[in-house]
Amino acid sequence: MLYLIGLGLSGVDDITIKSYEIIKDCDKIYMDIYTSILIGTDKKTLELYYEKPINYLNRELLEESDDLIKEALSLKICLLIIGDPLSATTHSEIILRCIDNNVKYKVLHNSSIITAVGDCGLQIYKFGEIVSIVAWDEFCKPASFYDKIIANMKRGLHTLCLLDIKIQEKSIENIIKNRPIYEPPYFLTINKAIYQLLEISKSKLKEDPDNALINLSTKGFGLARMGNDNQKIVSGKMEELLNFQFGLPLHSLVIVGELHDVEQKFYEYFSMLNYI
Amino acid sequence: MLYLIGLGLSGVDDITIKSYEIIKDCDKIYMDIYTSILIGTDKKTLELYYEKPINYLNRELLEESDDLIKEALSLKICLLIIGDPLSATTHSEIILRCIDNNVKYKVLHNSSIITAVGDCGLQIYKFGEIVSIVAWDEFCKPASFYDKIIANMKRGLHTLCLLDIKIQEKSIENIIKNRPIYEPPYFLTINKAIYQLLEISKSKLKEDPDNALINLSTKGFGLARMGNDNQKIVSGKMEELLNFQFGLPLHSLVIVGELHDVEQKFYEYFSMLNYI
Repeated sequence: MLYLIGLGLSGVDDITIKSYEIIKDCDKIYMDIYTSILIGTDKKTLELYYEKPINYLNRELLEESDDLIKEALSLKICLLIIGDPLSATTHSEIILRCIDNNVKYKVLHNSSIITAVGDCGLQIYKFGEIVSIVAWDEFCKPASFYDKIIANMKRGLHTLCLLDIKIQEKSIENIIKNRPIYEPPYFLTINKAIYQLLEISKSKLKEDPDNALINLSTKGFGLARMGNDNQKIVSGKMEELLNFQFGLPLHSLVIVGELHDVEQKFYEYFSMLNYI
Repeated sequence: MLYLIGLGLSGVDDITIKSYEIIKDCDKIYMDIYTSILIGTDKKTLELYYEKPINYLNRELLEESDDLIKEALSLKICLLIIGDPLSATTHSEIILRCIDNNVKYKVLHNSSIITAVGDCGLQIYKFGEIVSIVAWDEFCKPASFYDKIIANMKRGLHTLCLLDIKIQEKSIENIIKNRPIYEPPYFLTINKAIYQLLEISKSKLKEDPDNALINLSTKGFGLARMGNDNQKIVSGKMEELLNFQFGLPLHSLVIVGELHDVEQKFYEYFSMLNYI
């Protein structure tokens, strides 16, 4: 039996009582440490809390996951996942492998950024497709997320932009040499995400001006460390959010569509002016 | 201080440990009983679990909520909400009232149908705008949800359709006479929701054929009692789901956009054929 358990957004005690009791009763615990980071706790604290050792799964181990599936044929195995278990494709693929191998599985849900975004006062019903903004580097400047945001804006819908996280990535040299050396974690900031959006918009101005809809006056919300006691929500125009210091990761960005009355009040409440 | 606490999807133990400890420490507990139903438990069980009495808030009490706000000025008040606290507009409005009255508040998130829908294997990133399908009666046949589903389909996106719930509604006669008599609870079924969608599509065929995209061959998932041990997920074409018996509420419906490889495998896994 494989239990995919969501840990929620912060600390050891954001887990549900139901999930905690399953962990106490299981034979072995694994934890995904590459799709997100858990704020407000660490491995040692979790192990003391569960009174059991935790086996960390990095990218390779998780994507192969053969041992996990084999063990779950005869043992009760827990796979701990930060946030909700089904917000990343990786975990759906593990479920498919359970189905193919006749391993029973159960998903224990929890909150994620997709629920926590509600704290900014925008209605969950007024969001369109979620997008992931990929961090640019010197070689690669992807822009496919931009058109999805514009499609949402044209329908008056808000867009939750999840910002790139790189945990346990290898450099090209280390991939080629097959060395287990990982780059330091990287988290795309709200500021850099906005910079990228504005750059894409500039290039659209020439080739596709009808879709160059994001500019310095576009409204948004910057969200940092959602679900934690030190979470920060700041609303403002792109030009205001571009230089605001949001502090430690994780960051997310909301591009606003049309604001309804209640939403407008929240936009004003969280506006930059309250922070100056 | 007002704590808005999500109870999750089923049973007493779907609450987070963090939220449970806040409840144990608070001065008074209210519970919203009109925006959803909690499956697998009841008031008495919850009161025994928390070792405290719970005050039920019906529609009128919740929408006014003056007492709640006044008490929260000096006491620690918990407002229990089924699922996640910010999935219904009502609770955002209570937060606005806290802000206006200088009452501190804190939101404790939990899973909701928006996270649990991931169980059907569709990617959260491939969903468009969420819609609410309103139940038709003899006087009123709203159809605005239909165009939103079509807009999602045209972008290849899936649509989560939340189905109408009527709890503590009054008949027109009882509203006029201001009598505290409520109609029995009503829950729109997957079957009736599909019937309504097909009826709207038929009328579109004449007046707006480009948008008559939902027909008997459209693919979908029927979801019943999500998050509970007896949850049921069935995939199939509308003609198959139209007559499938999903059992007790709550029901939700997913209209499928374009299926990716992993999603296609889940669609096949949950297909009607597995149940015949």
